[in-house]
Amino acid sequence: MRAVDIIRTKRDGLELSPQAITTFVDAATHGRWPDYQLTAMLMAIWLRGMSPSETAELTRAMVESGAKLDWSDLPGPKVDKHSTGGVGDKTSLILAPIVAACGAYVPMMSGRGLGHTGGTLDKLESIPGFRVSLSFREMWQVMHQVGFAMIGQTATVAPADKKLYALRDASATVESIPLITASILSKKIAEGIDALVLDVKVGRGAFMKTDADARALAKSLVEVGEANHLRTEALLTSMDVPLGRAVGNALEVIECVEILRGHPVADDTRDLSLRLAERMLLLSGAVETEAEAATKVRHALDSGRALERFRKMVELQGGDPRAIDQLDRLPRVATRHLVRAPQPGYITELDAEKIGQGAMRLGAGRDRAEDQVDPAVGVQISVQLGEQVRPGDPVLEVHYRDMDKLDSALELLESAVRLGPEPEAPLPRIRGSIHGRFPRSEPR
Amino acid sequence: MRAVDIIRTKRDGLELSPQAITTFVDAATHGRWPDYQLTAMLMAIWLRGMSPSETAELTRAMVESGAKLDWSDLPGPKVDKHSTGGVGDKTSLILAPIVAACGAYVPMMSGRGLGHTGGTLDKLESIPGFRVSLSFREMWQVMHQVGFAMIGQTATVAPADKKLYALRDASATVESIPLITASILSKKIAEGIDALVLDVKVGRGAFMKTDADARALAKSLVEVGEANHLRTEALLTSMDVPLGRAVGNALEVIECVEILRGHPVADDTRDLSLRLAERMLLLSGAVETEAEAATKVRHALDSGRALERFRKMVELQGGDPRAIDQLDRLPRVATRHLVRAPQPGYITELDAEKIGQGAMRLGAGRDRAEDQVDPAVGVQISVQLGEQVRPGDPVLEVHYRDMDKLDSALELLESAVRLGPEPEAPLPRIRGSIHGRFPRSEPR
Repeated sequence: MRAVDIIRTKRDGLELSPQAITTFVDAATHGRWPDYQLTAMLMAIWLRGMSPSETAELTRAMVESGAKLDWSDLPGPKVDKHSTGGVGDKTSLILAPIVAACGAYVPMMSGRGLGHTGGTLDKLESIPGFRVSLSFREMWQVMHQVGFAMIGQTATVAPADKKLYALRDASATVESIPLITASILSKKIAEGIDALVLDVKVGRGAFMKTDADARALAKSLVEVGEANHLRTEALLTSMDVPLGRAVGNALEVIECVEILRGHPVADDTRDLSLRLAERMLLLSGAVETEAEAATKVRHALDSGRALERFRKMVELQGGDPRAIDQLDRLPRVATRHLVRAPQPGYITELDAEKIGQGAMRLGAGRDRAEDQVDPAVGVQISVQLGEQVRPGDPVLEVHYRDMDKLDSALELLESAVRLGPEPEAPLPRIRGSIHGRFPRSEPR
Repeated sequence: MRAVDIIRTKRDGLELSPQAITTFVDAATHGRWPDYQLTAMLMAIWLRGMSPSETAELTRAMVESGAKLDWSDLPGPKVDKHSTGGVGDKTSLILAPIVAACGAYVPMMSGRGLGHTGGTLDKLESIPGFRVSLSFREMWQVMHQVGFAMIGQTATVAPADKKLYALRDASATVESIPLITASILSKKIAEGIDALVLDVKVGRGAFMKTDADARALAKSLVEVGEANHLRTEALLTSMDVPLGRAVGNALEVIECVEILRGHPVADDTRDLSLRLAERMLLLSGAVETEAEAATKVRHALDSGRALERFRKMVELQGGDPRAIDQLDRLPRVATRHLVRAPQPGYITELDAEKIGQGAMRLGAGRDRAEDQVDPAVGVQISVQLGEQVRPGDPVLEVHYRDMDKLDSALELLESAVRLGPEPEAPLPRIRGSIHGRFPRSEPR
């Protein structure tokens, strides 16, 4: 099958055969097509779309481009969560130890932050000594001892995705539902999990700005996951406002540990983490009923067992476990700047995108993939939507290292907070859900 | 302006600014974008299209990517003809010396054959010693002495087109009206001409299979040519049946010389060549009226002046002028095979595409750009549409060198000729025309 014939088929809006899709993915993996044919194909896919069965086939071929982890020696179900990315989105660090404490296994491979959105690996690496690059043997040991591991994508997992993702970034072919679906699911399926709960973010600070777009992505993910024999469901959650109080790597670890200790500073982070953990237990079959899920999850948190698992995982992955108990051992900056309310009123807006971009400018995130992040800097949000403030009340606490970066960040941060004369009732964080064919996966 | 932003603009179906188009063309010319960004852009253009003003801008930028010839020292108008490619399409060799003999100048840069269509350069190179690669200084001398020159595209003319064309071929982005328009016109405008007559082929053996497609291409070419200050008009001519009697390089040169000698074997080749020559004289302003054009063209042919110009041009470009007077000095094969009428009837079909493909399989054309052609082989068509034949009458005379290639060619050639019980009136070769804004360019 010639490259140009496969590209022409998609260009003309025709259905690609499984053989054509496999040829394309193998070509990407093994360098059999020059990059200029791969990007012509990606643009044709972007503009013509793919049917659910083509997307399922693309996902399958991308999984098979590399290794798939095998956890058949573990006694419980294997489950993971994936978020499409947000600001202050730190639920993985909370839900993974909870789910592990409830008897399911979480072999989590995550990514780094890019643009205004954060990444789990960057947050974890703010813990002194923490290693996200483990060999499979090391990961196996962590999984066996604490029931979960948190690592970066290895070179052997979905290499086709690694190749195509780099080209998509440079060829304006990122925002395509079939391509996003195959990219997310191929990596998750290669983890060797039975079930996957998706947290599809929607709103100002999310990749998908509208409910319709987020719902279309969620639907594609669930449909294609299930077509590849992965139990899949999706929650649609709002990302107009950052999740929780902390935006920045060490600051977010602190927020997570506080929640695991039972001293939450922000209810929304805890609530969403618990809800996602419950769905993971239900979908994976670790529990039978919603009531059982809620009880177990709550107990794992309240008993301190989830915190204990988290501390142990940190230790096994080379991190300093004392940093979990003495949070001042985490990197921090001495220099803080307060953004204060200029007039009296009620908080009506905390713009997630502006706060995310502001944190990035401070050094907490990356503009380009090759940039380094500063683990200590970030933004602590002192208020909640609907809260009343008086003139001079602090609304944001900016942790900065460099005055120039602070000035650049403040351009965004000062306009991220809006005040109004009346309190507005905040919308619920969870906006809806998309469930698959499996009866016990039906969310509340 | 970042590549990815320009690609995204076209991907989203928005109008590209002149600056964005110039950036893209400059990037192609100077290797500033990697090929994988160029093909993503080409696919976006293929699928989203371009407005006439974007296409005009693309054409302009491609002209400016290289050198433009300057004939301001020549006393008469400069004019050319371009055909979109057909089978047995040899009019350039006839009309160029006629137009030159009538006082206009023809600085013709042509291409090679590809697939089932032939190329002017391949035909000329069948003349022993003929050189299609001339320096500009050499071309200048030929132009000054005989009023026309016939050469290949030089590296300095429209280098952006050379780069993009190679990528289009490998990325399934050839058949795009804006891209074809810019590719054809940029090379022609760079010739430094005042006027251009286009012969847009339509039908089985043409690139454009339907009247609507051919008309859309012709319209784009005329509109964009005129927007770039080139007087442009187009004839739409049928390519269901090969033009003339010969398909194959030396065989076609023989047919042309016979016409220039005043002994035409096929009226359609002569008629179309004369018509195109008349339009070139009118459009360029070399003559004022259609009657004057017809008289001058006829006289150039009948007086032998056109033949004399052709012989001289061959000599100046290194070819053996004796081959023009003694046609058996042209390359030929001794081995011929006759395809005969299997039953009595009237010729109802001479499939141009099959005959073109058959000639290619004999070695007269190329499957890939890097293939060599055999100047001597080809197909001589012994009959015309509507002609009555008896069983055993020869219909095609196949000039072959290699038995295997003959067998492969005959698979197509034997099915290219169809017989019917009744004569069908052949359709006229010229199906219509598209003219520009200039009053004297209005075709009959």
